[in-house]
Amino acid sequence: MTGLEQMLAIGSGELPGAPIAELLGFEPVDIEEGRVTFVGRPGRQHLGGSAPYGRVAAYPRLTGAVHGGYAATLLDSAMGCAVHTTLEAGAWYTTLELKINFTRPITEDTGRVLCEGTVVHRGGRVATAEGRLVSEKTGKLLAHGTTTCLIGSANGAAS
Amino acid sequence: MTGLEQMLAIGSGELPGAPIAELLGFEPVDIEEGRVTFVGRPGRQHLGGSAPYGRVAAYPRLTGAVHGGYAATLLDSAMGCAVHTTLEAGAWYTTLELKINFTRPITEDTGRVLCEGTVVHRGGRVATAEGRLVSEKTGKLLAHGTTTCLIGSANGAAS
Amino acid sequence: MTGLEQMLAIGSGELPGAPIAELLGFEPVDIEEGRVTFVGRPGRQHLGGSAPYGRVAAYPRLTGAVHGGYAATLLDSAMGCAVHTTLEAGAWYTTLELKINFTRPITEDTGRVLCEGTVVHRGGRVATAEGRLVSEKTGKLLAHGTTTCLIGSANGAAS
Amino acid sequence: MTGLEQMLAIGSGELPGAPIAELLGFEPVDIEEGRVTFVGRPGRQHLGGSAPYGRVAAYPRLTGAVHGGYAATLLDSAMGCAVHTTLEAGAWYTTLELKINFTRPITEDTGRVLCEGTVVHRGGRVATAEGRLVSEKTGKLLAHGTTTCLIGSANGAAS
Repeated sequence: MTGLEQMLAIGSGELPGAPIAELLGFEPVDIEEGRVTFVGRPGRQHLGGSAPYGRVAAYPRLTGAVHGGYAATLLDSAMGCAVHTTLEAGAWYTTLELKINFTRPITEDTGRVLCEGTVVHRGGRVATAEGRLVSEKTGKLLAHGTTTCLIGSANGAAS
Repeated sequence: MTGLEQMLAIGSGELPGAPIAELLGFEPVDIEEGRVTFVGRPGRQHLGGSAPYGRVAAYPRLTGAVHGGYAATLLDSAMGCAVHTTLEAGAWYTTLELKINFTRPITEDTGRVLCEGTVVHRGGRVATAEGRLVSEKTGKLLAHGTTTCLIGSANGAAS
Repeated sequence: MTGLEQMLAIGSGELPGAPIAELLGFEPVDIEEGRVTFVGRPGRQHLGGSAPYGRVAAYPRLTGAVHGGYAATLLDSAMGCAVHTTLEAGAWYTTLELKINFTRPITEDTGRVLCEGTVVHRGGRVATAEGRLVSEKTGKLLAHGTTTCLIGSANGAAS
Repeated sequence: MTGLEQMLAIGSGELPGAPIAELLGFEPVDIEEGRVTFVGRPGRQHLGGSAPYGRVAAYPRLTGAVHGGYAATLLDSAMGCAVHTTLEAGAWYTTLELKINFTRPITEDTGRVLCEGTVVHRGGRVATAEGRLVSEKTGKLLAHGTTTCLIGSANGAAS
């Protein structure tokens, strides 16, 4: 199977998704070559703290804000899977690094979020991708990021 | 309470920890001014995929690798909390960005991991921190990162 | 003057450009609100090494590759100036951090390069931007990046 | 020659340094395995703007601030060369990405700066490094960063 075929099989439920996606409650909703979108439902269990301490005190009108690791996990998934869709049969990738900007707080009231990852550069050994996490309701940008992935071929030339 | 007093109260259980820390299973084990260490227990529920697809295929001898979002969440916590310990009473911070390098795969067999965040620069409005995630058993570096936080004062001057 | 008016005055030569832009040989060629493009001419003086040592040995068919700092400088300029065009009169910004991916080597034979910076998020205190550095001849992506800037208002509220 | 031998030969003047180092005025002053330090002399020619516009207006008491690309170039050099010192004979590296935090403004009055790069992780195919740029006079941290490099072996297995 090519990487795109694998991702489509996960999207259709033919192959199981990642355990962490079940734990945090997100899954792919749109898969094409070079671009994958996930949907998530941030909730109380994802909060990074509760008033009156921590990140929350920054937004005194809120009762809590979702932990930055939640956005990082969705963006890592969307960007990594976008790279995954470009793999030929037998090839693999691994994420070398991830960079996330948090642009607006996510709260229990944010509702569903959409996280789109897109390949920016696909070389023979290295790929880069970018991602955007937006509120489904308002379309506002909640976080964005980039990633660098190492690509290996089926015969292990790069391993 | 100062930020350090708040963090110490979380560490002692006097104040509740972050909900996401309960969901993912990590908590602070060492807290001092400018430095906070968390412990985590990566397990099957944190995997980013399972053979024969995904990130896992990169490591054919493994049955699975922990999702990058797990390391990102622990590093975000440790680095953000390190900044938190530098806050005067009434001040707040929010994380602007996060950058993570993944240096070794984390698996079900990794065992407990320690994640130490340390403040690198503490200015009046901006702080930066760095973090290291290591295997408790081997001491080997699994991931490392940096972060940039915005600081606000009690009277809201920067808000 | 607003930030856009200042940038347009630099573009027209009414106000002087940055000294480092003269030293490295690049200048703005397109300026609008939220987007600025620079042109550069990478040459022998920008090389990061020469055979048979250093970065160059990675590309044995080349006699040399331009230093990564060259792309970083153009991207920092384009992204920072894009943020600059969003400033009201009397406001200021400063760059907190910069992240660059190098996707293809730049050489003496690359010819003119175009570097476009675009604002991604413009909040009250913080802005983010992204940038792309491409070969003018081929349109191929040479490097890309993101940045985080702190914004201050005329009355110094954020200072 | 190993990478360390190459770097030592550049340090002693036996092999020429990078052209951009001559253009910007910096050179290595301390070289050992896994750690390289450069010295630079930021001056008027490195400024990113001059009053009353641009980055400078953020620091109204200054007549100008050095461009972020200057710090990025020194950090890229120090971190990349630190990785270079770990290469066996015939091996090569190339920088995949670079992340810089600017913590204090650099001006014409800053005087000499020291930029130390240190390897954080050295794997078979990938290395990471971190760097610190400090004022020689005050020891204060001006900028810091991290980088990810791809390593290739002499026989080209990873190319």
